Amino acid sequence: MILEIADIRIQLGQQAPFEAAIEQATAQVLAQAKGCRGYKVHRSQESPERYILQVVWESLEDHTQGFRQSPAFGQWRALIGPFFASPPTVEHFELVTASP
Amino acid sequence: MILEIADIRIQLGQQAPFEAAIEQATAQVLAQAKGCRGYKVHRSQESPERYILQVVWESLEDHTQGFRQSPAFGQWRALIGPFFASPPTVEHFELVTASP
Repeated sequence: MILEIADIRIQLGQQAPFEAAIEQATAQVLAQAKGCRGYKVHRSQESPERYILQVVWESLEDHTQGFRQSPAFGQWRALIGPFFASPPTVEHFELVTASP
Repeated sequence: MILEIADIRIQLGQQAPFEAAIEQATAQVLAQAKGCRGYKVHRSQESPERYILQVVWESLEDHTQGFRQSPAFGQWRALIGPFFASPPTVEHFELVTASP
């Protein structure tokens, strides 16, 4: 299990259409991807054009080789890519500690 | 309910002592704070000096006024602050969408 964290900056004033697009993209595309165990999207209070997407994958390869190299990735990017102000920063994380 | 996300960069090669320190700081200090509903700490695979701390607070004020202005915040920073390579970037987030 690995956690993808994507730091997304969108164009000014595009919150409402971006949120509709990422709700559709996560529910209809991402959720169907092999190895996708769950996802969350949060909006920053201090930076209202900033969003954090978190996706739990069964393995790193399910994201980097499976999803990113599948036709679904084109559908995903077609839905949310037009809102990006810059390329998202994406890294993969392992759990160190958590509350019980 | 609000999600604090802190982006932490530590000094090179300090992973093991930093992880011990933040395990102690979260379990013994953060977990006792009023309004703290839970936390997670993750380490980046691509940037091994990068950690993401996530804390669920009942309200923004529980973090910014309650915890940060309490004596506990001094204990928290005394434990993990010495490892920082730069001041952490901290913002507060609201949920947009999530998997069922």
